[in-house]
Amino acid sequence: MKMNAYVAGVGMTPFGRHLDTTLKALAGAAITEALHDAGMQGSDLQAAWMGNAAAGVVLGQEMIRGQLALRALGIGRIPVVNVENACASSSTALHQACAMVSAGYYDVVLACGSEKLFHVDKMRSFAAFFGAVDVEDPAGAMKVIHDMARDAGVSLDTDGAGDKRSIFMDVYAIMAKAHMKKYGSTKEHFAMVTAKNSFHGSMNPRAQFRDEMTVQQVLDARMIVEPLTLPMCSPIGDGAAAVVLVSERKARELGLRNPVKIRASALASGFDDGADGDSVGALAARQAYESAGVGPEDISCIELHDASAPSEIVAYEYLGLCKPGDGWRLLESGATRLGGRQPVNTSGGLLRKGHPVGATGCAQIVELTEQLQGRSGPRQVAGARLAMAHNGGGAIGRDAAATVVTILSREG
Amino acid sequence: MKMNAYVAGVGMTPFGRHLDTTLKALAGAAITEALHDAGMQGSDLQAAWMGNAAAGVVLGQEMIRGQLALRALGIGRIPVVNVENACASSSTALHQACAMVSAGYYDVVLACGSEKLFHVDKMRSFAAFFGAVDVEDPAGAMKVIHDMARDAGVSLDTDGAGDKRSIFMDVYAIMAKAHMKKYGSTKEHFAMVTAKNSFHGSMNPRAQFRDEMTVQQVLDARMIVEPLTLPMCSPIGDGAAAVVLVSERKARELGLRNPVKIRASALASGFDDGADGDSVGALAARQAYESAGVGPEDISCIELHDASAPSEIVAYEYLGLCKPGDGWRLLESGATRLGGRQPVNTSGGLLRKGHPVGATGCAQIVELTEQLQGRSGPRQVAGARLAMAHNGGGAIGRDAAATVVTILSREG
Repeated sequence: MKMNAYVAGVGMTPFGRHLDTTLKALAGAAITEALHDAGMQGSDLQAAWMGNAAAGVVLGQEMIRGQLALRALGIGRIPVVNVENACASSSTALHQACAMVSAGYYDVVLACGSEKLFHVDKMRSFAAFFGAVDVEDPAGAMKVIHDMARDAGVSLDTDGAGDKRSIFMDVYAIMAKAHMKKYGSTKEHFAMVTAKNSFHGSMNPRAQFRDEMTVQQVLDARMIVEPLTLPMCSPIGDGAAAVVLVSERKARELGLRNPVKIRASALASGFDDGADGDSVGALAARQAYESAGVGPEDISCIELHDASAPSEIVAYEYLGLCKPGDGWRLLESGATRLGGRQPVNTSGGLLRKGHPVGATGCAQIVELTEQLQGRSGPRQVAGARLAMAHNGGGAIGRDAAATVVTILSREG
Repeated sequence: MKMNAYVAGVGMTPFGRHLDTTLKALAGAAITEALHDAGMQGSDLQAAWMGNAAAGVVLGQEMIRGQLALRALGIGRIPVVNVENACASSSTALHQACAMVSAGYYDVVLACGSEKLFHVDKMRSFAAFFGAVDVEDPAGAMKVIHDMARDAGVSLDTDGAGDKRSIFMDVYAIMAKAHMKKYGSTKEHFAMVTAKNSFHGSMNPRAQFRDEMTVQQVLDARMIVEPLTLPMCSPIGDGAAAVVLVSERKARELGLRNPVKIRASALASGFDDGADGDSVGALAARQAYESAGVGPEDISCIELHDASAPSEIVAYEYLGLCKPGDGWRLLESGATRLGGRQPVNTSGGLLRKGHPVGATGCAQIVELTEQLQGRSGPRQVAGARLAMAHNGGGAIGRDAAATVVTILSREG
């Protein structure tokens, strides 16, 4: 979808373990920072789209999550829409907010994502993740995984570790094994993804993990499910991120310095219905490139959904950064590392910045806005003009349940 | 917000207790009926907004609820946004869908609401409702209720029945007592609301309760919290409702018979911030009237949020159907009964049709569309040309957390 909305301000909390902070306080901190960044007050906001994926199961707060966060800041009476699309919840919120601003309904709106996944009762965190597959058909969810393994001709490690990981890591393990078998990627390549993103994350003060890891350290870490070691899996986390969006008219009126424009945002959902060869992720990327009138080669820097290390390599391919099967070659070339041609996940990505699921989509926009405005400090991508965010969520059959691809540009 | 979208088809399940039916099967039945009503296939849909409020807490399915329902029907790959605004979830979904169609982004979209509140473990149902206030601050939620009682100079019945009812009935009881004290309404008036809506519901094959009750029967029923007897409280329920919306261009292309247009939809959220004297409900109504260019006196029939019997009388007032304090006089006049000047809740309302919360907003549109198209059978409002739906949800402080008012007209 072609968009015409401008980022007036961004904010986010550090990602991590925030057991003693309420969900609304996390959201409030991100919103306050975004408003400050925009030079605005809460009373300037005309509407808000609030993303969250798991507060019902984790905290018991399934309803009116956004209103509570806004009230805590004294922001009343504006239309609020609570949006859920699993790990793509806040990119979906952003997509809706952008569309409404681009259509001329509002001049100043908020998109926000917040999440608390840590809980003293760990079963709540696990229950939340299971809620991203079909709870009413758990056998069906497992069958899909076994079918995927069978079709790929690879084995699924079912050694009983399942109670210590989310079902998603089984999906990613199968995806990784299939890629290794078909295209020759190796466990070392997956470790290289984590090592690269840990290098990036070491320069991000808001990252959940800030230690830089070597490839060997990643390989030597505890095995979660073959071939994924612990640092190849994104962690659970708590945090929030917020984006203040304004219309073109308002952007002019404000005289924004270094304005960042959202040029396109594509939301693809559902499941692979066999209508074409694309995954939901590939479909969203293709639509976003078309709407923005650019190609993958034009993008300066990218935040993509590295929920697992192999996910990043596979995403290189379906986002069109390289040919199918060439993901590991692109990684080996250094192109996606800071200093390379198209740095990927300069924030540290989900693997190192962290993945409080409902907050991740907006956090990607925070990182890319700062990159496009030249304020990313030691991890700045030199001369960044065009950026892309890719955020996926949920699992239906073999495909993501929702994916949002957003393309942003530095204007002026 | 001024809208320009047409209702191409509507569908809903009977409301009631559907313990043996999955959430996605309920949604699927409503969507299938709406598509059939529109003469369309699932493949005609270009996007979907799916409302649900409580599946995370009740069923453990907090994420991708909409995608699962659509997949069960073989509807893949369209953008899906899961929307939550407590009891106003599916009217919020409809609001978003209307705005996107009116802006020209899509020609054919779906708005759907579904809910399962009954569970063999009744604590799950209670937990769901508690999630509509601030779970992180339960003492604050109770303090608001006690403050309301104090400010109104009425007593709150805290006889220990609290474990058998949702916190909302305490709020409604205080509201009722305050209205009685200030404006002279009586318990008999509240019973008259239920009796009227039971008369309407007795003619609605999809209503949860179809027995007609006399005023005396309502008064004699079990007391929940003074002055509310059981039939003065909306029940919990399971069900789904769906609306297929099309653009003006598409409506012309389809040559819709008896087209129903959505002329305005106002979403007001948050809380009473003291900026004006309006409640969130009054604000939404005022905005909807302005956008549609009509006044309350122009409306032929109304579905409003009678979550409790006194709620209907109070809503008469803030929706502008009568002057403040005159709600009981309007009721006594018979104007809001079938055959009267402005029949209210011809479906039976939340009190009798039922209130599967996330489904209620779309179900109101189903009723009003059928009324405007002259296909409501024995409960048909003669000559209905203009209709209004009012759907509220959640509680923050003394106000609804979200309210949507929608105005529809029969065209041609």
